[in-house]
Amino acid sequence: MAPIITLLTDFGTVDGYVAEMKGVLLTGAPAAMVVDITHDVPPQDIERARLTVARVWRRFPAGTIHIVVVDPGVGSERAALCVASDDRFLIGPDNGVLSPSLLIPSARAIELPTPAGSSSTFHGRDVFAPAAVALARGESFETLGVPAMSPIVRRTPEPIRTTRGELDGEVILVDRFGNCVTNLFGFRAGTVTVDGREIRVRHTYAEVGIGEPVALVGSAGFIEIAVRDGRADEVLRLTRGSRVLLHNDSG
Amino acid sequence: MAPIITLLTDFGTVDGYVAEMKGVLLTGAPAAMVVDITHDVPPQDIERARLTVARVWRRFPAGTIHIVVVDPGVGSERAALCVASDDRFLIGPDNGVLSPSLLIPSARAIELPTPAGSSSTFHGRDVFAPAAVALARGESFETLGVPAMSPIVRRTPEPIRTTRGELDGEVILVDRFGNCVTNLFGFRAGTVTVDGREIRVRHTYAEVGIGEPVALVGSAGFIEIAVRDGRADEVLRLTRGSRVLLHNDSG
Amino acid sequence: MAPIITLLTDFGTVDGYVAEMKGVLLTGAPAAMVVDITHDVPPQDIERARLTVARVWRRFPAGTIHIVVVDPGVGSERAALCVASDDRFLIGPDNGVLSPSLLIPSARAIELPTPAGSSSTFHGRDVFAPAAVALARGESFETLGVPAMSPIVRRTPEPIRTTRGELDGEVILVDRFGNCVTNLFGFRAGTVTVDGREIRVRHTYAEVGIGEPVALVGSAGFIEIAVRDGRADEVLRLTRGSRVLLHNDSG
Repeated sequence: MAPIITLLTDFGTVDGYVAEMKGVLLTGAPAAMVVDITHDVPPQDIERARLTVARVWRRFPAGTIHIVVVDPGVGSERAALCVASDDRFLIGPDNGVLSPSLLIPSARAIELPTPAGSSSTFHGRDVFAPAAVALARGESFETLGVPAMSPIVRRTPEPIRTTRGELDGEVILVDRFGNCVTNLFGFRAGTVTVDGREIRVRHTYAEVGIGEPVALVGSAGFIEIAVRDGRADEVLRLTRGSRVLLHNDSG
Repeated sequence: MAPIITLLTDFGTVDGYVAEMKGVLLTGAPAAMVVDITHDVPPQDIERARLTVARVWRRFPAGTIHIVVVDPGVGSERAALCVASDDRFLIGPDNGVLSPSLLIPSARAIELPTPAGSSSTFHGRDVFAPAAVALARGESFETLGVPAMSPIVRRTPEPIRTTRGELDGEVILVDRFGNCVTNLFGFRAGTVTVDGREIRVRHTYAEVGIGEPVALVGSAGFIEIAVRDGRADEVLRLTRGSRVLLHNDSG
Repeated sequence: MAPIITLLTDFGTVDGYVAEMKGVLLTGAPAAMVVDITHDVPPQDIERARLTVARVWRRFPAGTIHIVVVDPGVGSERAALCVASDDRFLIGPDNGVLSPSLLIPSARAIELPTPAGSSSTFHGRDVFAPAAVALARGESFETLGVPAMSPIVRRTPEPIRTTRGELDGEVILVDRFGNCVTNLFGFRAGTVTVDGREIRVRHTYAEVGIGEPVALVGSAGFIEIAVRDGRADEVLRLTRGSRVLLHNDSG
């Protein structure tokens, strides 16, 4: 079976950086299937990229090679990583974007060398894509570099339990629909308080009227706050980092 | 031949919803060719999605499986559909987005069950993509669900013939270039009146001067209004729903 | 090996024009691998498309077929071209977008006929995609049309050497990060003057402080001006065409 190589960047597509990477991949590994995850991560938004990686990396089949390039430190001393985790490979800068794969206990990480002649501004083309080609051609993970001693791991902030028994959480991202995803994970009932309003956790958007706010368990298991047929970020004035209190009735 | 599975959504790409669907598809049907139609439908714009489906669904080869997810009613009682029509399959919510395929007399539609454990907010991943996988793996259409009795069908509004013999039509969409596509179909000559201006139907943009408005038969057979090297929507103050009168000289 | 067909357009994706082309390609050449370069070229921006073509066309393997559709003159007398150059093929309008391939001395170009029934507004679907299908199916280049006598060639403007020995260049594009790529090629040191400020040419972004401007050799070999963790176009008020003087210390 042809190896799958995915691309997740903040490059947009018009400048041709993504296409150069695709050219390098398909020249070196002509049988590979190159799959776009996204190129619309806001420029240099490592945290947003990390959350997208978290959502998708294990949805792809075993053997998939994920390349993640959101890399404000390109050309500096930051390491280039290749991670082997849960039968997938992830390649990208050592700045936290690959964290979801590093949190698996059996994960291994190596530091990739920078090939001679690499551009100091475009490791996606000159460091990361060639490493993916090597893996796709069957080179062994261990030969690609030296073990990485302490790769950077970023975590979603944990909600804090207050003395009153509430969970003090926050919005970790606002999606395209204005839905506000929180860091409240593992709860299926309760009431959230945001912007001075109390909102019950429901099962579906349709349980409230059009234009009304609703909280529910999102498709990645986190409680999210939405407005039926509207934008919760605007209606409730929420943004990344906004505080969300959960009173867990059943807790 | 590997089956083609296309994706048409209003998800954007940055949140990772599309990538999760790609992961489900390539895990379940590794030989499939997954093709992006668009992920830039304006959020929850069923009508715009329907028009894009109309344009593209039969351009793909027989056997293609189209997944269409513009789904404001996800999690409510709205049905999930799979349509078999003109040797292609279409999968999506029962809200009108699949209408172009349902208008073919031999079309058949079934209601897809919601697998246990499905997210109430993401049927693209948990209902529609698995149905596409089943088809791609050769399961028969009939086994995927029960016949759908009366799926929702939306139609492009028909222009009305006035007592003066004109056709009273409207703009059904404004494209990326500001070209205004109307519901006037099957005419190759005449004069349209918009915003108080009379514009002759021509063969090409180049028949008028730069900055001048022009009407012509667009690539899907509908009369559209453009401005050469400019934006008709801005110059002529047109938007979806704007009235367009056609006086068909030859009629 | 399946032929690769790439698509570079200013169509966006929501209108379905790109998807119609993909449908034509996959119907005619089912084994082809269709690769998106970009569909986000600003509408009708031939120059931007030309620079993206320059960056990417030879990164893809020999045999690749590139379709480029940024085509304000569609339907006029402008020719439709197919170019064979350095073992790749490029297909698009004769307006300069294919110039990078035409500058190779051994390049050959033919004019493609317009098939009967072609839309006057959508040669991407009716002229260019069918030509790519013909090549992908093994038809010989020479049989696709008649030799093109003098295809339009656009070049990046050359910097001018001033009487004081400086190079008088300009910004040729601003990328997604606000980095300003100049036409100063082949220099690895010196000082640029923009907006009244002198900026040293360095090796990496990291050699300056956050928020500081820096010049460096970009990944295509041109000097570019950036601001570390910021946008050079905004900080330095640069746009396409802005003047950039290079004082080449070593020159």
